[in-house]
Amino acid sequence: MDVLKLGLIGAGRIGKVHAQSVAYHVPRARITRIADIAPEPARVWAAELGIRSVTADAREILDDPEIGAVVICSSTDTHADLIMAAAAKGKHVFCEKPVDLTLAKVKAAVDAVERAKVKLQVGFNRRFDHNFKRIRDLVREGVIGTPHVVRITSRDPAPPPLAYVKVSGGIFLDMTIHDFDLARYLSGSEVVEVYAKGAVLVDPAIGAEGDVDTAIVTLEFQNGCLGVIDNSRKAVYGYDQRVEVFGAAGSLACENDTPTSVVHSGANGVTGDKPLYFFLERYQKAYIDEMNAFVEAVLDGTPTPVGCEDAIQSLVIGLAARKSLAEKRPVRTAEISGAETARNRARGSR
Amino acid sequence: MDVLKLGLIGAGRIGKVHAQSVAYHVPRARITRIADIAPEPARVWAAELGIRSVTADAREILDDPEIGAVVICSSTDTHADLIMAAAAKGKHVFCEKPVDLTLAKVKAAVDAVERAKVKLQVGFNRRFDHNFKRIRDLVREGVIGTPHVVRITSRDPAPPPLAYVKVSGGIFLDMTIHDFDLARYLSGSEVVEVYAKGAVLVDPAIGAEGDVDTAIVTLEFQNGCLGVIDNSRKAVYGYDQRVEVFGAAGSLACENDTPTSVVHSGANGVTGDKPLYFFLERYQKAYIDEMNAFVEAVLDGTPTPVGCEDAIQSLVIGLAARKSLAEKRPVRTAEISGAETARNRARGSR
Amino acid sequence: MDVLKLGLIGAGRIGKVHAQSVAYHVPRARITRIADIAPEPARVWAAELGIRSVTADAREILDDPEIGAVVICSSTDTHADLIMAAAAKGKHVFCEKPVDLTLAKVKAAVDAVERAKVKLQVGFNRRFDHNFKRIRDLVREGVIGTPHVVRITSRDPAPPPLAYVKVSGGIFLDMTIHDFDLARYLSGSEVVEVYAKGAVLVDPAIGAEGDVDTAIVTLEFQNGCLGVIDNSRKAVYGYDQRVEVFGAAGSLACENDTPTSVVHSGANGVTGDKPLYFFLERYQKAYIDEMNAFVEAVLDGTPTPVGCEDAIQSLVIGLAARKSLAEKRPVRTAEISGAETARNRARGSR
Amino acid sequence: MDVLKLGLIGAGRIGKVHAQSVAYHVPRARITRIADIAPEPARVWAAELGIRSVTADAREILDDPEIGAVVICSSTDTHADLIMAAAAKGKHVFCEKPVDLTLAKVKAAVDAVERAKVKLQVGFNRRFDHNFKRIRDLVREGVIGTPHVVRITSRDPAPPPLAYVKVSGGIFLDMTIHDFDLARYLSGSEVVEVYAKGAVLVDPAIGAEGDVDTAIVTLEFQNGCLGVIDNSRKAVYGYDQRVEVFGAAGSLACENDTPTSVVHSGANGVTGDKPLYFFLERYQKAYIDEMNAFVEAVLDGTPTPVGCEDAIQSLVIGLAARKSLAEKRPVRTAEISGAETARNRARGSR
Repeated sequence: MDVLKLGLIGAGRIGKVHAQSVAYHVPRARITRIADIAPEPARVWAAELGIRSVTADAREILDDPEIGAVVICSSTDTHADLIMAAAAKGKHVFCEKPVDLTLAKVKAAVDAVERAKVKLQVGFNRRFDHNFKRIRDLVREGVIGTPHVVRITSRDPAPPPLAYVKVSGGIFLDMTIHDFDLARYLSGSEVVEVYAKGAVLVDPAIGAEGDVDTAIVTLEFQNGCLGVIDNSRKAVYGYDQRVEVFGAAGSLACENDTPTSVVHSGANGVTGDKPLYFFLERYQKAYIDEMNAFVEAVLDGTPTPVGCEDAIQSLVIGLAARKSLAEKRPVRTAEISGAETARNRARGSR
Repeated sequence: MDVLKLGLIGAGRIGKVHAQSVAYHVPRARITRIADIAPEPARVWAAELGIRSVTADAREILDDPEIGAVVICSSTDTHADLIMAAAAKGKHVFCEKPVDLTLAKVKAAVDAVERAKVKLQVGFNRRFDHNFKRIRDLVREGVIGTPHVVRITSRDPAPPPLAYVKVSGGIFLDMTIHDFDLARYLSGSEVVEVYAKGAVLVDPAIGAEGDVDTAIVTLEFQNGCLGVIDNSRKAVYGYDQRVEVFGAAGSLACENDTPTSVVHSGANGVTGDKPLYFFLERYQKAYIDEMNAFVEAVLDGTPTPVGCEDAIQSLVIGLAARKSLAEKRPVRTAEISGAETARNRARGSR
Repeated sequence: MDVLKLGLIGAGRIGKVHAQSVAYHVPRARITRIADIAPEPARVWAAELGIRSVTADAREILDDPEIGAVVICSSTDTHADLIMAAAAKGKHVFCEKPVDLTLAKVKAAVDAVERAKVKLQVGFNRRFDHNFKRIRDLVREGVIGTPHVVRITSRDPAPPPLAYVKVSGGIFLDMTIHDFDLARYLSGSEVVEVYAKGAVLVDPAIGAEGDVDTAIVTLEFQNGCLGVIDNSRKAVYGYDQRVEVFGAAGSLACENDTPTSVVHSGANGVTGDKPLYFFLERYQKAYIDEMNAFVEAVLDGTPTPVGCEDAIQSLVIGLAARKSLAEKRPVRTAEISGAETARNRARGSR
Repeated sequence: MDVLKLGLIGAGRIGKVHAQSVAYHVPRARITRIADIAPEPARVWAAELGIRSVTADAREILDDPEIGAVVICSSTDTHADLIMAAAAKGKHVFCEKPVDLTLAKVKAAVDAVERAKVKLQVGFNRRFDHNFKRIRDLVREGVIGTPHVVRITSRDPAPPPLAYVKVSGGIFLDMTIHDFDLARYLSGSEVVEVYAKGAVLVDPAIGAEGDVDTAIVTLEFQNGCLGVIDNSRKAVYGYDQRVEVFGAAGSLACENDTPTSVVHSGANGVTGDKPLYFFLERYQKAYIDEMNAFVEAVLDGTPTPVGCEDAIQSLVIGLAARKSLAEKRPVRTAEISGAETARNRARGSR
C-alpha cells in the first residue's frame, strides 16, 4: 500500500485535529514533519502521535523530497504564499479556509497550483458531514425534483476572541464562507446575487470592530433557486447547524447531532440533549473524511472534491455579502469576480 | 334529519363530558333528561347546555317514551341493573366501562340486551383515539404483516382517591381493562392467556387495600401474537399512553399527544411539552367520536363498534390478570370464562 | 348570559368556517343573518346551522338593529366599504384579511371605525394557533431573552386558481401578509425595513401574471431584531407552517401539526404523517379561538387582539415587499406609510 | 506510557472488531499475537493492523511471557477452559459473552480467576453504549427517583443461521443475556424472579430446534423494581435497541441511532432513516470503549466494569428464563443459583 507522507504547517487547534485524524483514521497517509512558528507546545502531542520532527521553519517541510503533500493550517494571511511555495516544490496542498481574504491572492495561489499541476483541496469540512452529504446526494438523485430554496441555519455557541474578529475579514469571510460553500454544494449551482443584512445583537464590541454578529443573507443561484442563510455568533444551546433543501417534489432537512438520544420526561417537561457543542465535536468525522478524500485524490490521481473553483467562488460570495452589507443593496457576484468568473467556471476544479 | 333523544344517567365528571360532547359535537342526538342521585350540582351546567330536566330518579328517564337511548355514567355497581332496566324498556344503551366487576352480571346484562334486541356500546373510548385507530387500520391493511407483539404503555398522572381504589375492583378491572380492550382491538385477536406481575411502588396505602399500583401484564393471543402492558398509577410528567404493534413487516408506534409542538433550546437542554395531562385532555376528541358512533349505530341500525362481546372479554382478561397476580402463575382466559366463551365468541357483537 | 347577534357577509369557504365556529364553539354569539351575492348555495348549510335568514343584500344585515356586529368574508375589494357602512351603523366589525390592497382605503376604514368608536378585528387567524401563541407568550415572558431572529417558513400545498392570483394583489398581499402580521406578533416590534427576493419556480403562468410563487423576505424590526420569511406556493407534502424565534437566551421553535403521531418502521425507512393539508385543517381551532376573542372584546368592552394598527402595518409591509421586489432594493416601511405611521403607532389598537 | 500486550484468541467477526479497536483506538494496548483454529483468513487483516504472529495454537499466546492479558473471542464452549488456562498463567482475561452455558463452568472459571487474582471482564458491550450509559448515570444521580419499571426492546434485524441456533443455548442465553445484563445495569439491582413467554413467529425452523424467536420476559428486582424485555429475532427495519427506565420522578428513554437525521417530506409522507443495521454498526464505539475500560482496569489495577458476578448473574437469569418458558411459571433466580448466590453477591466483582 502506498503511504503519502505529509507535512503539517501550523500546529494550532485545527492543525492538531488533522494530525490526529491522519494518525488514527487515514491509513494511506502519515505526517512526518510539523512546522509551527512556536513549535514547543506541539512537540508533546506530536510525539504521542509518533511524529518526531517539529520545527519552526516551514521550509524544512517544503524542502523534504519525501513529503508529497502539505496540510496548511497556519494563519490565513500566510495561506496563499505557502500554497505558491508548495506548488513550486511540486507538492500537493490541503489548505484550511479561506485561502485568502483578497481575490487577487486566491487567484494567484490557484494559478500557481494549476501551473504546477498539483492538487489543491480547501478545508470546507461541512461537505463531508454525514447529514449534509446525504442531502446533497438525494438532491442529485432527484428525490425532491428541482431545488427551489436552500435554507441554512448556522450559529456558533460563542463568538471568537475580539483579537480574532479584527483579522478575520468579518463574519462573511470567516463564518458564513462555510455556508456559502455549503449552499453551492447543496444547490449544485453557482451564486449570482447576494443580499446581506446584519445586526450587532450579541456583543457591541464586535460592532465596534465594524463587524456584525447576526446576519440574514439571501442568495440567488444561476439555476433560479433561492437561498437563505441565518447566522448568529452566539447560540446558548450550542452549535446550531441545520439545512433544508426544498424543491418541486418535497424537502430534505436535517437536525443537529446530539451526544445521546436520551430524553427525560419529568414534572417540568420533556428534555433532551443540546446539540454537540462546537465544530470539533460536530464535524469530528467530517474532518477525518475530508483528509481521507484528499489523500485518495493525491494517491489515485483523481480530482479533489473541493478545489480551486470552490476556493474562488466562496470568497467571491463572501466579498459580495460584505459589499451588500456596506452598500445596503443586492450585489451581483459578477461585480466582484468580473470577467474572470466565466473563465474560472469553465476551468472547473482539478 | 332524525335526532336521537338521549337520557343521561349519572352526572359526574364523565357524564358531563358526554353531555358536552352531545351538545356541541353530536349533531344527530340531543340529551333531553339527566338523572343523578345528587342532581343539584348538575343543574347549572345542564342549563348552560340547554338541558332543562335534571332529576334524582333514573326511572323518569326510563319511562320517557321519547327517549331512544340512555347513556349510563353512574357508579359501576349500578351499571348492570340499569342496562337490564333500559333494555326492558326497549332503550339502546351506551354504558361506561366496566359493565360490572363480576362476569355473571355482565353476562346477565348482555343477555338482557340481546333478548331485547337493543344496542349496547361500552365506553372503551381509546378505540376512537386518532393514533390508536390509525394503527389498528394500518394493521388491518397488512402494513406490518402478521402482528407479533403488541406493546402498550399506560400510566396515569396520579392515582385515584383511596376511597375509589377500594371499590374499583383493583387496577386490572379499573385501569388495565382499557388496555385489555385496546390489545384486542389492535391485535384483532382474543386473549387466551394472561400473566400479571404487580408491585406497590407508588403508594403503600394502595397496597394496604390489597391492590398494586405498578404492573406488567403479558398476554398471549389466539392468533399467536404476544402482548405486554406496563402500567403505573403515577407518571409525574402526565398521562402516558403509547402503543406499538410489531409484526413480520415492521412496526407501527405512536407517541403521546402534547398541547403544542413548541421546543425551547436553552442553556440547560432542549425542552418540549409534557403529554396532555389526563384522559379528559387526551381523549377529548375520542369521547366525541365514540358518542357519534353510538348515535349512528342506533339511528342507522348498524352494529355498535364496541359491543357485548367486548364487555365480556375485557372483564374476562381482567379477572384472569387478578387471578394470575394472586396465584403467581399464568392463567388461561378459558379458566375464567369456561365453556361459555366459545358460544359468546361465535355470537359476535351486535 | 349576553349573546351577541352576528351578521355574516360573504358565505364562501371562509364564511362557512366562521359560521360553523360560531354555531358550535362560540357560546356567547349567534349568527342570525347571512348575506351573499349568490345566496342559494349557502341556504342549505345555513339551515343545518339553524340560520334562517340568507339574503343577497348585505344592507338587510346592516339595517337590522338586533345585530351587534358583522363578520365580513366577502371579496377583498368590498371590505373597506362594508367596514365603513357597518361603522356608520354602529356595528362592530370582524373582517377577513387584507382589509384592502391600498393603504388609503385601509386608513379610511380605520378612521371610520375609530370615529364610530366600534371595534375592528382583522382575521389574522395565525395569532390564535396553539403553537405560535405559546411561542409569543414565552418570548414575552423572556424565556429566550432579547429576540435576535424571527424565522418563518410558510408554504401552501398548492397555488390558488389563476383567476384568484390576478386579483389577489400578489403573493405579498395575499399570502405573506399573514407572515408579516405573525412576524410583528412574535417579535413584539414593528417592521422598519423590508427586502424581498422572488422567483417563479412553481408555475410560469403565475409569472405571466406578474407575480412570483417563491420568495425570501428579510425584515428589520424597530427593536433591532431581524426576520426572514420563506414562502412557496406549492409544497407537495402539504401546508408547511413553522416558526422559530431565536434570541440571546435560546430559541423557541415549533413543528407542523399532523393528523396522528403514528410512525411506520419498515424495510424502506421510518415514515410518519405529512402535515395537516391546508389552512382549514391546520387552523381549525385558531378560527374558533379568534371568533371567541372577537365576541369577548365586543361583549366585555375590551380591545380586540388584532386591531386597526395591525390592519395598517401588515399592508404597509406587504406594499414595501412589493416595491422591494420591483425595485430590487431594501425598502423602508416609512417610505410607504409616510408621516402617518408615527401617528398610527401612537394610537394603538382599540 | 505503559502499553499492555494482548493476545487475541478467536479471530472471527467479533475478534476482528476487537483487533481493529485496539489497533486504532486503544492507545494503551497492542495485540501482539492472534490464535485461531483456522489461522489463514486472519493473516491478511492481521498484517494490515501490524500484527505479525497468527497461529493455530492458543498455547503460544498463553506461554508468551510478554503478553499480559488475553481477549477470548472463540466459540462459547471453549471460553471457560481458556479462562482457566489463562488465569493459571497469570494473565488477565477479557471474554466474550456468555462465559459458558452451564453455571458450573462459569463458576469454575470465576473461581480460577479469583484464585489467580487476575482480572476478568465479560463482553457485555451495551453497558458502554452512549445512550444506555447516560441513562444509567442519570438513574444513579437520582434524576427519576426510585426506578419502578425497566423496559427493554431488543430486536435483531435477522435471525442467525440455524447451525448457530442449535449450539447457542437458545434465545435467552444467546440474545436476551445482553438484555438481562443491561437490566441489572440500568436498575442497579439483582433479578430475583423471571417469567418468560415465547413464541415461534419468525421462522418455524427455529421452533423445530426447540427455540423461540419472539419473547416477552418479565423481571422482578431485589429493590422492588419490575422489568420487561421484548425480543424478536427479526425486525425488517434493522436493529432495534431501546430502553426506558421509569421511576417515581419521571422517565428516561432513548431512541435508536440512525446513520443520519435527514428527513424527506414528500407526497407520500415524511420519511427518515432506519436504525443502524446491526450490532457492529450500532455498538462500534461501545466496543472501543469496553476495550479501553478493560485495558485501564488492568494497567491501573482497578476493578473491571463488568466482572465475575456479572458473568454469573446474567447466566442465572438466562437459565431461569429458559426454565420459566419450559415450565410455564415464574422462576426465582434462587432456584437456579442456590445458596451460592448470596456468597457471590457479597464477593462483588473484581
